[in-house]
Amino acid sequence: MTSKLKLLDNFRIVLCQTSHPGNIGAAARAMKVMGLNRLYLVSPKQFPGKEATSLAAGADDLLQNAHICTTLAEALTGCTLVIGLSARKRQLSHELVSARQAAGRAAGVAASQQQVAFLFGTEMSGLSNAELDLCQLLAMIPSNPDFSSLNVAAAVQVMCYELRSALLGSQLSEELLPNNQIKPGPDKTVNLASSEEMEMFYRHLEETIRQIGFLNSRSPGRIMQRLRRLYARARVEKEELNILRGILKLTQQPNPDKYRKKQP
Amino acid sequence: MTSKLKLLDNFRIVLCQTSHPGNIGAAARAMKVMGLNRLYLVSPKQFPGKEATSLAAGADDLLQNAHICTTLAEALTGCTLVIGLSARKRQLSHELVSARQAAGRAAGVAASQQQVAFLFGTEMSGLSNAELDLCQLLAMIPSNPDFSSLNVAAAVQVMCYELRSALLGSQLSEELLPNNQIKPGPDKTVNLASSEEMEMFYRHLEETIRQIGFLNSRSPGRIMQRLRRLYARARVEKEELNILRGILKLTQQPNPDKYRKKQP
Repeated sequence: MTSKLKLLDNFRIVLCQTSHPGNIGAAARAMKVMGLNRLYLVSPKQFPGKEATSLAAGADDLLQNAHICTTLAEALTGCTLVIGLSARKRQLSHELVSARQAAGRAAGVAASQQQVAFLFGTEMSGLSNAELDLCQLLAMIPSNPDFSSLNVAAAVQVMCYELRSALLGSQLSEELLPNNQIKPGPDKTVNLASSEEMEMFYRHLEETIRQIGFLNSRSPGRIMQRLRRLYARARVEKEELNILRGILKLTQQPNPDKYRKKQP
Repeated sequence: MTSKLKLLDNFRIVLCQTSHPGNIGAAARAMKVMGLNRLYLVSPKQFPGKEATSLAAGADDLLQNAHICTTLAEALTGCTLVIGLSARKRQLSHELVSARQAAGRAAGVAASQQQVAFLFGTEMSGLSNAELDLCQLLAMIPSNPDFSSLNVAAAVQVMCYELRSALLGSQLSEELLPNNQIKPGPDKTVNLASSEEMEMFYRHLEETIRQIGFLNSRSPGRIMQRLRRLYARARVEKEELNILRGILKLTQQPNPDKYRKKQP
């Protein structure tokens, strides 16, 4: 884990009066998969329980270490920023931002080793007005206005995903491949054909398609240009180029029995 | 719904051989809440069923309208871009991007009214190699390397969230107060070949290179796999595909005088 991702420890997920224990388990799994581990439960209706553990699917350490609180204030102890997740537009004087913007702000606060809490309300009615009073910021996950019924664990998933993404920032693509075995895009560790090799291939290709009668003498340049662009976009690897050159060679001099002969 | 968000209709979510009907229901809910509605199920283990409907929680219209397919190819009919979601790093020459980058690309393709498919594999092992062969791009959701067990419906949630966010573009916050117009993504004017057209091309290519004696009967699969990935990376346009098909046709039946005859 890079030092940036250590900042995930400064985020806590606070679930307020959750009704379904399965949602608590699924939220724990959603957190852990994004590298968060501080779960606070304010007066959960039913916890602990089999369903929570089952849906945590391996994130049961987060359930075991969960802070169970009787008041929201208790769950917020030590936090300098409290962000409420809201599915609806509310007629309140809270500042309202997107989940992505909220993640950016939270990352800034976490960078100075301060704690940030994210509040999620009940399945039925979200955060109460009293709970909203304790928030400094409201965050909304963009959703379909005709069906905005985002499951609470799904909301936790999206928020935690945005938090991880915010900390990774421009390094997002490096996260994809921490061991540097393969890098995004074809060119870092794969062995690409050189320009000279590609030029030899284009000459071979032009010669071959002229020989079979494809190259229209009226617009050979245009056809070759299209083909060059196609292969340039693909960023051909050496090994692939060998395949293509092999095909061209046999197009010029077909030998249907070549490989069969090698068979016993 | 703004006109930009109408483009969500150009995205389809394809769940391959999902084991748990609850995950299908939760995925449908995740889609609908982000405004997507085209669900494709390839050989689901158990569907339809009570658990799926229960977890869809109001998104049962998506379940009723789901396309149930026996092969993945059937689910991809009409798509010009196929993106596989992968939890693991794979030693393949696929281009690998983050879910966010994938959403940006998909938004560009959708802007030119072309269809994009997102493939999700099984709960246990993700996408098979045969399924990956049909993908042009792999997308990864950044996750905790020590616990990357992202639930399939949660992965659908994050991907659909990124798609909605990509269409909303930099004006994401205006979603909070709708009425926005967004610029189309990068490849709006190119006319990409569809999956079926590419499949026909691959069949033609295989037939042709077998005929000229290139295809080694000991490893035809590997050669074709390399060629598929090469052309998948290039994202072949319809016009380019016509050129390639024309070359194959004349490779099978050369006609060196074809074009010369047309000259005076």
